Amino acid sequence: MGGRALVQWEQNRDNAPDSLAVDLYPGGPAPAGGLDEVTFYQVPYAPSTQGVDERLDMIARMPSLEVVQLLSAGYEHVLPLVPDHVTLCNGRGLHDASTAEHALALILAAQRDLPRWAVAQKEHRWDPAPLRSLADRRVMIVGYGSIGRAVESRLRPFETEVVRVASRARPDVHGIDELHALLPDADVVVLATPLTEATRGLLGAPELALLRDDALVVNVGRGPVLETRALLAENGRVRAALDVTDPEPLPGDHPLWSASGVFITPHVAGGAAAFYPRARAFMDAQLARWAAGEELANVVRPGAARRGR
Amino acid sequence: MGGRALVQWEQNRDNAPDSLAVDLYPGGPAPAGGLDEVTFYQVPYAPSTQGVDERLDMIARMPSLEVVQLLSAGYEHVLPLVPDHVTLCNGRGLHDASTAEHALALILAAQRDLPRWAVAQKEHRWDPAPLRSLADRRVMIVGYGSIGRAVESRLRPFETEVVRVASRARPDVHGIDELHALLPDADVVVLATPLTEATRGLLGAPELALLRDDALVVNVGRGPVLETRALLAENGRVRAALDVTDPEPLPGDHPLWSASGVFITPHVAGGAAAFYPRARAFMDAQLARWAAGEELANVVRPGAARRGR
Repeated sequence: MGGRALVQWEQNRDNAPDSLAVDLYPGGPAPAGGLDEVTFYQVPYAPSTQGVDERLDMIARMPSLEVVQLLSAGYEHVLPLVPDHVTLCNGRGLHDASTAEHALALILAAQRDLPRWAVAQKEHRWDPAPLRSLADRRVMIVGYGSIGRAVESRLRPFETEVVRVASRARPDVHGIDELHALLPDADVVVLATPLTEATRGLLGAPELALLRDDALVVNVGRGPVLETRALLAENGRVRAALDVTDPEPLPGDHPLWSASGVFITPHVAGGAAAFYPRARAFMDAQLARWAAGEELANVVRPGAARRGR
Repeated sequence: MGGRALVQWEQNRDNAPDSLAVDLYPGGPAPAGGLDEVTFYQVPYAPSTQGVDERLDMIARMPSLEVVQLLSAGYEHVLPLVPDHVTLCNGRGLHDASTAEHALALILAAQRDLPRWAVAQKEHRWDPAPLRSLADRRVMIVGYGSIGRAVESRLRPFETEVVRVASRARPDVHGIDELHALLPDADVVVLATPLTEATRGLLGAPELALLRDDALVVNVGRGPVLETRALLAENGRVRAALDVTDPEPLPGDHPLWSASGVFITPHVAGGAAAFYPRARAFMDAQLARWAAGEELANVVRPGAARRGR
């Protein structure tokens, strides 16, 4: 609960309780004070994966480490690097506003043909055409966690019908076992699930075939939840707006780039401006909890000592 | 209250009260039954202006006419063509869902750099970069009528602060005389006003100069409410997402097409799919009112006989 914390932002250093030694580490070479006494390590968050490996490798050089704090929601890739006695926390919830906002941006962009207008603008063409709407559409949210709920609250005023699907059925939420029965009635399917054995390839050829002509799949979860090959085989019959892809990053010669009815943004949903004030506020509170010896928030794997208790 | 009605859609003909003779006229040459007995004329709605003149010229060839029903919200251009004794009704409210949805699409597209990604996709470039958010931004809605309210309800869940501005101050709504005082604190300004003498050039050089660097102006009202020349002079300091422009349509050689920070859609906000079921439902109800001798809805200029009463 004491020792030395490494954090990314000055706000968190400045607001930390006096009992805690806090140094800045925004990435790059190891900080001046060395790594020996670091007990709490907030891995510097970066919107791209550049430099991430180095930041994670440092974990192995921190003999006093007790807590690794990620600000990403995903943590599977970090698990093997975190010693068994160290508690791992993630950034669950911090990206919800940003990600849900991007999901809406993608849905509206697809329904309103914004990529077409962007290209027409480049060619100086004023060429109006009838548009789809989001109103009156049935939107299925697959993955009804905190991001799914944030997407739903933003969808509601658009005069849509929302259908909720989660791994297990509960009141007002369908179970994933009902997916095949629900797909034929969906106009828009929003994928907001983490990547697990259960969600990999969740939307493949059989599932896409169940969708209506001109249905829209939006993926703000993880790329492999939607099978790229199956989407390509639909040949534009089903549309897609994707912030995540499989593979990722998408190579320059990949056919998905120019697939009919597919709009791509390069995994930028969760790290937009809205993330930062939420992440800083979370870190202030998390450091206060740590200094006070309270339970940490967002623990995804307690250290072995705590697990044993 | 009786006579013969011309309507655009089969649903409205089929649902009309038996006491009313209703013929279809979706545009094109005059309908088979002639125009002499037409008392109620629903001018066929078209998402573009093509063919509109002909549809309006027909008004002069309807000697029994009592009501002209537009499905557009704008009606100023039709007033001179409607004889004094004829009642003119418009399509106020029918475009709200569609227009408000497009306003959100434009706001999110601008904040999330969607035009950039659309162009990057065409060039097969995966090139992530930090993005703005809509969350935490202060959005000013100028023109707080039914479209303004529809925009507001869709904005609310995005964790924004909404500032309302209308022609006259009322509780919780600022008057337009406060515009200059309010502009410096706005991140996004949504223009949703009709075009009147008071709103023409409402955002000109002095007003744009009051906006923050990187502020966004969204226009889903009428083009001339925002001064094109003043926007161009900002040279990208203030961004814009415009569904309406001045002039309109925008000529191919106009500098607005390639102005920095400007995204253009070709006046498609109000006529998207959401409009049609709402317009058909309105027409069913309006014809029922007409057949029953009740007051019509959406009267923008009563016929002289009624005005005299």
